[in-house]
Amino acid sequence: MRETANEPFVYNAWYIAAWPEEIEKGLVSRTIMNEPLVLFRGPDGKVAALEDRCCHRGAPLSHGTLTDGRLQCGYHGLVFDGAGKCVEIPGQTSIPPHTRVRSYPIVERQQIVWIWMGDPSKADESKILDYPVHDQPEKWPHKKATFVIKANYMMMIDNLMDLSHLAYVHRKTIGGSPEAHATAENSVEETETGCLYQRWMMNSPAPPTYVKAVGFKGRIDRWHRFEYVAPSTVIQNNGAIDAGKGARENQNQPGLQFELIHHATPETETSFHYFFSVANGYRQDDPAATEQLFNETYPTFLEDKVIMEGQQARIDRDPHRDLIPIMGDKALFTARRALKKMIDAERSSFGTVAAHRA
Amino acid sequence: MRETANEPFVYNAWYIAAWPEEIEKGLVSRTIMNEPLVLFRGPDGKVAALEDRCCHRGAPLSHGTLTDGRLQCGYHGLVFDGAGKCVEIPGQTSIPPHTRVRSYPIVERQQIVWIWMGDPSKADESKILDYPVHDQPEKWPHKKATFVIKANYMMMIDNLMDLSHLAYVHRKTIGGSPEAHATAENSVEETETGCLYQRWMMNSPAPPTYVKAVGFKGRIDRWHRFEYVAPSTVIQNNGAIDAGKGARENQNQPGLQFELIHHATPETETSFHYFFSVANGYRQDDPAATEQLFNETYPTFLEDKVIMEGQQARIDRDPHRDLIPIMGDKALFTARRALKKMIDAERSSFGTVAAHRA
Amino acid sequence: MRETANEPFVYNAWYIAAWPEEIEKGLVSRTIMNEPLVLFRGPDGKVAALEDRCCHRGAPLSHGTLTDGRLQCGYHGLVFDGAGKCVEIPGQTSIPPHTRVRSYPIVERQQIVWIWMGDPSKADESKILDYPVHDQPEKWPHKKATFVIKANYMMMIDNLMDLSHLAYVHRKTIGGSPEAHATAENSVEETETGCLYQRWMMNSPAPPTYVKAVGFKGRIDRWHRFEYVAPSTVIQNNGAIDAGKGARENQNQPGLQFELIHHATPETETSFHYFFSVANGYRQDDPAATEQLFNETYPTFLEDKVIMEGQQARIDRDPHRDLIPIMGDKALFTARRALKKMIDAERSSFGTVAAHRA
Repeated sequence: MRETANEPFVYNAWYIAAWPEEIEKGLVSRTIMNEPLVLFRGPDGKVAALEDRCCHRGAPLSHGTLTDGRLQCGYHGLVFDGAGKCVEIPGQTSIPPHTRVRSYPIVERQQIVWIWMGDPSKADESKILDYPVHDQPEKWPHKKATFVIKANYMMMIDNLMDLSHLAYVHRKTIGGSPEAHATAENSVEETETGCLYQRWMMNSPAPPTYVKAVGFKGRIDRWHRFEYVAPSTVIQNNGAIDAGKGARENQNQPGLQFELIHHATPETETSFHYFFSVANGYRQDDPAATEQLFNETYPTFLEDKVIMEGQQARIDRDPHRDLIPIMGDKALFTARRALKKMIDAERSSFGTVAAHRA
Repeated sequence: MRETANEPFVYNAWYIAAWPEEIEKGLVSRTIMNEPLVLFRGPDGKVAALEDRCCHRGAPLSHGTLTDGRLQCGYHGLVFDGAGKCVEIPGQTSIPPHTRVRSYPIVERQQIVWIWMGDPSKADESKILDYPVHDQPEKWPHKKATFVIKANYMMMIDNLMDLSHLAYVHRKTIGGSPEAHATAENSVEETETGCLYQRWMMNSPAPPTYVKAVGFKGRIDRWHRFEYVAPSTVIQNNGAIDAGKGARENQNQPGLQFELIHHATPETETSFHYFFSVANGYRQDDPAATEQLFNETYPTFLEDKVIMEGQQARIDRDPHRDLIPIMGDKALFTARRALKKMIDAERSSFGTVAAHRA
Repeated sequence: MRETANEPFVYNAWYIAAWPEEIEKGLVSRTIMNEPLVLFRGPDGKVAALEDRCCHRGAPLSHGTLTDGRLQCGYHGLVFDGAGKCVEIPGQTSIPPHTRVRSYPIVERQQIVWIWMGDPSKADESKILDYPVHDQPEKWPHKKATFVIKANYMMMIDNLMDLSHLAYVHRKTIGGSPEAHATAENSVEETETGCLYQRWMMNSPAPPTYVKAVGFKGRIDRWHRFEYVAPSTVIQNNGAIDAGKGARENQNQPGLQFELIHHATPETETSFHYFFSVANGYRQDDPAATEQLFNETYPTFLEDKVIMEGQQARIDRDPHRDLIPIMGDKALFTARRALKKMIDAERSSFGTVAAHRA
């Protein structure tokens, strides 16, 4: 396989459009796969996603106002429902049926707002990723965030599929010693939907975030279970127990455990919305612990942002120039193979994407 | 008529280049129709407009200095007169006649500096728009401003030719209730130079700016008279009188009346210099009233800037994509037709623009 | 000769990459001729220049860390030596020989870090410009700086090869009266490597910087000796002695004398790194005098930056549009002819640049 850095979009897939709490604060204007969208909650409480462009004079609908769940353009007052249909034109009694804006399938589930950017007739809800962690706030108290990273979305997958970067990028938080990373035991398996990457660091020094979280005094047995679900999700479970206590056999002993969902929703070819939710699985009845975990995680991921954006700047100079693989790339390549399979399948169903845009 | 959002430039027309008071403050560097210009007042007091590029090494002349009405380049000291002729080369006695920079016809009249960007042989001063308001500072005390709006110049015309936008964009100042706007009586007439758009809102609530200006206590009869003069000017007269006092028959009763000139001078294809002058026709001997009117108007037009720039950002993604007309667009379409006539006429006189640039 | 403003790069030449003291402060990330580079000092103390892009995943190496003179990528920890060879891949025992990044010949000499961006087989150290001033810190105490100017590198040569600009751009520091400049005696000679431009301003008023430096009370005899060494260097010696004291015969009398090296290293086609070092040749044992000279020089050159960037902005609109020569351009044209000879010679050795990049 010839490996290149940037990957094209997979259209026929569910992506995270927003966290529900973003939408409670007002109209959300967000570009996904080069389409400017506006997100809002309709009169029935259902989240809607419309093209963020009034069909009348092109004004952004996100400059408008939401009244009783219907979106009114802030320029000349046209009103649209969640399906993109114009339901009112001030000063005009009849509304021609073509007066409408594009809408996108949305499903809100497990505290995630999912969107489908491809052929709407293929928007099968049963294919939405299950994330039961969000169903169990008592077992997994969690906190969410999102920001834009100016890099192709696959840079996030690359990043998460080679954990040796923890030793160099995240020294101050979740790093751990380079030696511990260099000697970690890795396993990579293809799955039906992507790949599973696991990593054990036995008898290794506890990184700063781990010590802050549960006060490890000595060495730890540390695991990482990263599951890539193509095209854009990584589910992460990781944790640690005092070294030599049998962590491999039983991870539910006292110690540290947290779980994350990472998701990269393409904004443009060279930028993505990074969504993450981090769940505290070790001091569940202590909100301060969840807060602390989040406060360690957020700046850690900003470190990734800096390196990915630097990486993309170099790649942009010559996107097809070869990169040189190393042994640590195994999970990354397995993930990219899974993605390419999706891309190839979508492309072979010729005309699909073009058709739904007509 | 297929209607598109952006319009090309009309070259053979008079545009506002500056307000005279801008030029008193020093050299004005301003790009008009993609040409960087420098404006200054010559030794005879006449305003001159030169290309803002020294013919010697390309330095911007606006970095230079003005001495006795002659412009000296700030790099190697070449001096130019208001016609663009080089009249001094330091250290050199003879000046080859081709040592000159492009100049543009300028007419200063009625407190407006007009420029002609097209074929100079066609720069007929008799075609300059008459704006007698500026001749009557006692009847029409006024105040002027200018700023850049990042949108095609026709977005300003669109904006002014559909006043229903007042209800949505300008709620805080000159808006008025959406109902009053939806039920307004509109009339649109073609004129020789553009179109006349009139709008009456009988027995309607007084918007905040109107109340501040003259203290209306109840409902008002409100009129708007907007005359578009192609390619780039709108003359506005509007006002209000207590409802039921016969405003239609006599608008010179006690009440509110103000008058504006709006002008959109293209900077680039997707930006324009917005010039406006607003005149107080209701408390003429109170300078504070003129000031207050200006202070209400300026932020109101910044609201238009925001919506027009948002609109342009969407249009830029696909400038030829269809827009869907509504009934309220009648004046807008009439104005655009008048403009297209001008554009077609200019284009049919093939070679004109190219020729004057040789 | 048809003269255009921008010039292409000369690849086979030595350029200043950095001042040594910049490299002492840490990794230097700098783009030269469109190549992003990272500069650092290796274990032997030798300065190295590598492409600022890890061959593994494209991350900028300048985000990494320097340990014992070896550069470790800040993403996955690959380590490179000064020749660009990868010497360590964490978690991997063998290193395939193609695991390397591009390196560039570097020579540090006379307090200057020189780089060769062209065909490495032609990087002849004997062709490095000799700048003995830096070898004599007691005779020529000096201070250095660098900043980016957003203009083609030849704008610096143009600037220095017409000193009449001093009267207009640098009135506040090294200017002098326009009359004195207009009547200056100039001579220009071609040299083997460029040209020599000399300028005497006899019995002329002392400019502010000269008065500050040595307290001239009256008129001065002032000289400038500017030697252009193609493609990118100007060596400047200038000074002044009280008028009528025989400055032409003996310049080593009490008075003012300073010496500079100016160097324009192309960053892109329309930007360059401006390097300069200014040496005090008049109060050598007074560090405050050197400091004062530098503090006069630095803002003076920022004035040049402003005018050159304005000039470039105009040139960018139409890079091939004619400029109109004046008599004062003689040195400038002689310099440009020398450069063009170099460019033509390089281009005639077809394939050279392409070959070394294979």
